[in-house]
Amino acid sequence: MHDDDVVLRALRPPRFGVNYTPTRGWFHHWLDFDLDEVKSDLDSVAGLGLDHVRVFPLWPLFQPNRTLIRPRAVEQLVSVADAAAALGLDVSVDGLQGHLSSFDFLPAWTRTWHRRNIFTDPEVVAGQEEYLRTLAAALADRPNFLGMTVGNEIDQFSDGPHPDPDRIGREQAGQWLERMLAACEAGAPGRFHLHAEYDASWYRDGHPFTPAQAARLGAATAVHSWVFNGTAQRYGRTGTATEHHAAYLVELSKAWATDPARPVWLQEVGAPAPLIPPEHAASFTAATVANALDCTDLWGVTWWCSHDVARGLADFPELEYGLGLLTNERRVKPAGGALARIAAERRGRDHRPAPRRTALVLDVGGAEAAPRRSVCAPGGEFFEAWMRLTAEGVRPAVVLADRAGDPGHLAARGITELVGVDEAR
Amino acid sequence: MHDDDVVLRALRPPRFGVNYTPTRGWFHHWLDFDLDEVKSDLDSVAGLGLDHVRVFPLWPLFQPNRTLIRPRAVEQLVSVADAAAALGLDVSVDGLQGHLSSFDFLPAWTRTWHRRNIFTDPEVVAGQEEYLRTLAAALADRPNFLGMTVGNEIDQFSDGPHPDPDRIGREQAGQWLERMLAACEAGAPGRFHLHAEYDASWYRDGHPFTPAQAARLGAATAVHSWVFNGTAQRYGRTGTATEHHAAYLVELSKAWATDPARPVWLQEVGAPAPLIPPEHAASFTAATVANALDCTDLWGVTWWCSHDVARGLADFPELEYGLGLLTNERRVKPAGGALARIAAERRGRDHRPAPRRTALVLDVGGAEAAPRRSVCAPGGEFFEAWMRLTAEGVRPAVVLADRAGDPGHLAARGITELVGVDEAR
Repeated sequence: MHDDDVVLRALRPPRFGVNYTPTRGWFHHWLDFDLDEVKSDLDSVAGLGLDHVRVFPLWPLFQPNRTLIRPRAVEQLVSVADAAAALGLDVSVDGLQGHLSSFDFLPAWTRTWHRRNIFTDPEVVAGQEEYLRTLAAALADRPNFLGMTVGNEIDQFSDGPHPDPDRIGREQAGQWLERMLAACEAGAPGRFHLHAEYDASWYRDGHPFTPAQAARLGAATAVHSWVFNGTAQRYGRTGTATEHHAAYLVELSKAWATDPARPVWLQEVGAPAPLIPPEHAASFTAATVANALDCTDLWGVTWWCSHDVARGLADFPELEYGLGLLTNERRVKPAGGALARIAAERRGRDHRPAPRRTALVLDVGGAEAAPRRSVCAPGGEFFEAWMRLTAEGVRPAVVLADRAGDPGHLAARGITELVGVDEAR
Repeated sequence: MHDDDVVLRALRPPRFGVNYTPTRGWFHHWLDFDLDEVKSDLDSVAGLGLDHVRVFPLWPLFQPNRTLIRPRAVEQLVSVADAAAALGLDVSVDGLQGHLSSFDFLPAWTRTWHRRNIFTDPEVVAGQEEYLRTLAAALADRPNFLGMTVGNEIDQFSDGPHPDPDRIGREQAGQWLERMLAACEAGAPGRFHLHAEYDASWYRDGHPFTPAQAARLGAATAVHSWVFNGTAQRYGRTGTATEHHAAYLVELSKAWATDPARPVWLQEVGAPAPLIPPEHAASFTAATVANALDCTDLWGVTWWCSHDVARGLADFPELEYGLGLLTNERRVKPAGGALARIAAERRGRDHRPAPRRTALVLDVGGAEAAPRRSVCAPGGEFFEAWMRLTAEGVRPAVVLADRAGDPGHLAARGITELVGVDEAR
């Protein structure tokens, strides 16, 4: 990497977007696909001044049989991308859903009588490759196609607390991710393909998806920040830890990156009620985004989600109904107004947060397996030390213990001071 | 019941039909619904001279959320019925699929994080009622709508060997069936609504779905005859037990009926390779149907299935690909020719098989729970005794041991001679 690249990348304004939750029928809209409704939804997103959407096929609908990837579904996906393009929105596509808002969508050919581990069965994995390659290829010539995400938090299916996981080991998870990313690349070479897991990969000891995979595989590191993970419960609505949780994940991830300027995508972050009450959603949003923007190499922020879930749909966890920046009738909510203002302020401006000179040293018992990564979780000693430093105004970076003695690594990241967890007490 | 009713019912010619397996995309065709393709399929069915089809919505596609029964899906179902009407075909609709050809289709709102017993959870059951009522109501004014079947062999989900059953007790199964049938009746009063289970209800000790439920709930008793259940393996392709398995189920079911003239629908029967090799499918079909037609009060025979499964679709058990009366290109296969000839021979003719005067006495340990019903299964002592009598030309009926001393019951059925299993050895 040349110094010029680093500077150019650092100067690129951050991207602002949303995870697109269709107003009519939620993600079941694929069953009654209506491009006019999609256009209206996307128009209301564009009205916020955002620049991209993340969109979600439902895997069992797009690939109902292992050897049937429905051409019409693929065409509909492309038509969503084209509708977005007409409104100036770029599109990122998650392939393997998989999991969305508490609902699991797995094809019949992987369950019950056809139960096969979705990460290791050769036929299932080959089917997934073909599926991801097909979606990527269909979008490859669209200028507004950012790239593929392998699937939304598919690590949920690999471990508890999922009630029925397909268990695998860390090496298997890594091999699977490499194959999936290669399939995306084969379909659409050179695009921004990545994978995205939920925070168990950062916080859960023994979880087969790891921080090293997150920070080293794919074009960027994706982080999903959800303060209902114990953070808001423990530290309160306006606690440092709550308002900095997203920034923390961004910085935490960098400890594992081998490219010191690797982009990090805050791909999901939201304001879940009642932990963040609706009347405080705007202030939480403003604080969370401001803190995330204070991290270098942030690719962008993609809020969860675009539109509220219709109350007429049953069985969602209560918090999932109200996460939209817009109502189900496409009216702007306060959090939507807050994100729109931030996006407007940042548009076209240099984005150059100061390097974080002070790094907190993290010992997870080895970078690859991170067997003690739960020190990073809410309530963990590392988590709390980082938040204490932050509350004191330190702006801490994170350095892994086994890299803390590597001057080249520290210099590449601009780190000049190391602080141990014990010192940060 | 008046004697006239019995005579009229007995004289009604038997119905001949097929379970409709769409040629393009199998049951996934609902995702790419194409009425012209459906019409071409149904036209090829009508070309066999058959009079009805059994059709299968996929539950998760029709009701993807508990409170979303997709109007467009319901309209498509009605359009299938209307297309059938135009070809002179009546339509029976199975609601809760559920299970089809080794694949399970259950909505996300009943699985994993939303796992709720599909037979007992109050919200799930209310959702199922609404679904069945809605489908029935949509078809209620169609003259060619026969009625609803609750779902295809939904008892598979209640017990092993299903890999992940929602276990229930016998009383719960009965209560659930009564609610589902009432929902069908509420939607389309007076139609031919029933439930249909696989043969575990007749053969498997402890199975929560019972012979008494099969023979007493709904407008008719449905039996599904599949000789891959051990029959063809044990007795051979042309064994008496193999060629009479369907007739046996019909007669067995009557032992539990409270209405002596209750109709029995042989709702599924097929010629599974390699146990029935393709070159012998026609002779198996002819023998099976002829033997079933020798049972009184047979409502009709509905072959599984209309069209072969396209080889381009993966993961079906090998036998499922070739069960069609027609190829996937809608060409008539030998078994289709055989059924067409039988249907033509019977058309408009009186159907009056002689009553079965001799009954084999069946002791299953009590009619309601039938705790020893496995004596009825292939290889069981009752099964074998019945087949020995049949091979000797006896044409046995079946009487439950606890009714064998009831002269009224025997007289209503025309039974004049009882034979014990020991005597039939």
